[in-house]
Amino acid sequence: MAYPEMFEGIGVTNPEDWKHPKRVTYEPKKFDDQDVDVKIEACGVCGSDIHCAASHWGPVVKNQVVGHEIVGRVVKVGPKCTTGIKIGDRVGVGAQVASCLDCSRCQNDNEPYCPRVVTTYGQAYPDGYVSQGGYASHVRVHEHFAIPVPEELPLHLAAPLLCGGITVYSPLLRGGCGPGKKVGIVGIGGIGHMGILFAKAMGAEVYAFSRSHSKEKDAKELGADHYIATLEDKDWTEKYFDTLDLIVVCASSLTDVNFDELIKVMKVNTKILSISVPSIDETLTLKPFGLLGVTIGNSALGSRKEIEQLLKLVVDKDIKIWVEQLQVGEAGVAEAFERMDKGQVRYRFTLMGFDKEFGN
Amino acid sequence: MAYPEMFEGIGVTNPEDWKHPKRVTYEPKKFDDQDVDVKIEACGVCGSDIHCAASHWGPVVKNQVVGHEIVGRVVKVGPKCTTGIKIGDRVGVGAQVASCLDCSRCQNDNEPYCPRVVTTYGQAYPDGYVSQGGYASHVRVHEHFAIPVPEELPLHLAAPLLCGGITVYSPLLRGGCGPGKKVGIVGIGGIGHMGILFAKAMGAEVYAFSRSHSKEKDAKELGADHYIATLEDKDWTEKYFDTLDLIVVCASSLTDVNFDELIKVMKVNTKILSISVPSIDETLTLKPFGLLGVTIGNSALGSRKEIEQLLKLVVDKDIKIWVEQLQVGEAGVAEAFERMDKGQVRYRFTLMGFDKEFGN
Repeated sequence: MAYPEMFEGIGVTNPEDWKHPKRVTYEPKKFDDQDVDVKIEACGVCGSDIHCAASHWGPVVKNQVVGHEIVGRVVKVGPKCTTGIKIGDRVGVGAQVASCLDCSRCQNDNEPYCPRVVTTYGQAYPDGYVSQGGYASHVRVHEHFAIPVPEELPLHLAAPLLCGGITVYSPLLRGGCGPGKKVGIVGIGGIGHMGILFAKAMGAEVYAFSRSHSKEKDAKELGADHYIATLEDKDWTEKYFDTLDLIVVCASSLTDVNFDELIKVMKVNTKILSISVPSIDETLTLKPFGLLGVTIGNSALGSRKEIEQLLKLVVDKDIKIWVEQLQVGEAGVAEAFERMDKGQVRYRFTLMGFDKEFGN
Repeated sequence: MAYPEMFEGIGVTNPEDWKHPKRVTYEPKKFDDQDVDVKIEACGVCGSDIHCAASHWGPVVKNQVVGHEIVGRVVKVGPKCTTGIKIGDRVGVGAQVASCLDCSRCQNDNEPYCPRVVTTYGQAYPDGYVSQGGYASHVRVHEHFAIPVPEELPLHLAAPLLCGGITVYSPLLRGGCGPGKKVGIVGIGGIGHMGILFAKAMGAEVYAFSRSHSKEKDAKELGADHYIATLEDKDWTEKYFDTLDLIVVCASSLTDVNFDELIKVMKVNTKILSISVPSIDETLTLKPFGLLGVTIGNSALGSRKEIEQLLKLVVDKDIKIWVEQLQVGEAGVAEAFERMDKGQVRYRFTLMGFDKEFGN
């Protein structure tokens, strides 16, 4: 059986050997009246994919398919859709596929903070079906989470915006990034490199923070105005005392970040926002004395409205994120997992060639 | 020898027996050209006084005098004073007696966040002199930290504003407390009770949080519109889901506070500000997953400008904080320490009768 009864994907068939996922066939979720089916054309590879596949966030279900930076074409539209979505539309699906859409958070463009969020893979819908991701032929989602993607954006550059991109754009936006603001990006990786590009495009003066100088050339090329190697530079907390209006931490773990140092370079009454989603048992230990005058918190994804805004920004400012393309399939996903796990990516992978792997 | 060569106070002569401080005579700091001497007329009793006297923040110096909610009259003015301060002025001295007054933080009304803060007692000035507090005949401070106190404010009601009051007023102000805002005060004690009064006077809808219902009557009388007993009420996180614009935590320890619960009742993109200064070795452990959408941080004291603003608010709105008066002296301080340590105060002590104890 093939679509629409069954989807195909590259899934974790053996959690012990998660780095070698296999081609699998699986049943999609039940098709609801406001759902759409999307035939996938590209899917970015996010750090979360590795966390999930490797069971860092708890055990995975059989044949778990990951991937939540999806771009594709709408091939089926539920009878009660109201957003105007239609067959043939180019849409993106990010890391969230459901929320109640009814509570005050959902009604105020804060659907990632709804208590009834369902993530794109590895989380159960209310009916018990565990969501399956985008290393696959298709994805089925509520229309609210299928967001129009401008035709002029190249596929491989569009896909990583749906999770990695929005994850750093939303805290920049909510944290007031813009002209006249001095904004720090801590951690120059897949998400951090987009943070530099976006913060610069939003008009801020950008400070890139990394542990060593190894990424200085890249950071400057991406648009950073300043570069601080926190473990190698001397006296940087004095040099940049009371300077920054906002920091977005894109490091993969918060426990690596020295908040006692960072708050010295922040202005008073500013925010450090982290986008880290580390292992579920990781905890952050802070001295209450150490948070004086600066607040810290975690940001999650971004709303549909913010994703639309980001896609427009990237088109309008012709922002080019740094992406390496890989052919989707068992070999391509294995390579992505292996190299992401080792940090061997500058700075993001997009899986392409879905037609070749999954046919028409 | 008496003033101006020597000051007198009630100090901790034996740290092992800190609850029984004794009358002591001590040398004041060197008189600098921008210093003033203040003859003390009232001094509030702050939780910090107990922390310091009991060596919770490290060992105390010999004959440590605490107290940093000081009101008195100026009796000597340095030759280079520029604020217009003059002999006979009624002034208040809070918990801070020095900062560099030159860095960008000091220049922007953020002097409590200057790296060169000296607190009113128990901290060394650059010359090594360890500051002495206000359970004393006099205090000597830089004019910037001697703030005019309106004559119409009764002494016993004015004193607690200088530390406890400003400590909760500053985060309310910086956190945007005002008409149309829903503001939570967590911890209904000496500082929290002022938080309710101020937040209400600033025009907010006030939510009082305490562990039990024991303080509900008081909180409502102080002006709280809602009362939540976090350990006794059921389903309060659902009832007040996504409601509050700001929370100021006035609990004496942050580790008692369940942030995972509090963030559910906060709107997205809001702040939880704590004023807690717990034991120096207390650490706060948070799950990074748990801070979604809300930031937390510590607030410290308030600027001179904010203290002036608070004193004006209290006069203009005729705010009456709840204060019990005690006669300053060995017996009065011992009683204050004992009862503060046991939480037997509704809600603040002011030491009075300084003329009687220390003469003219």
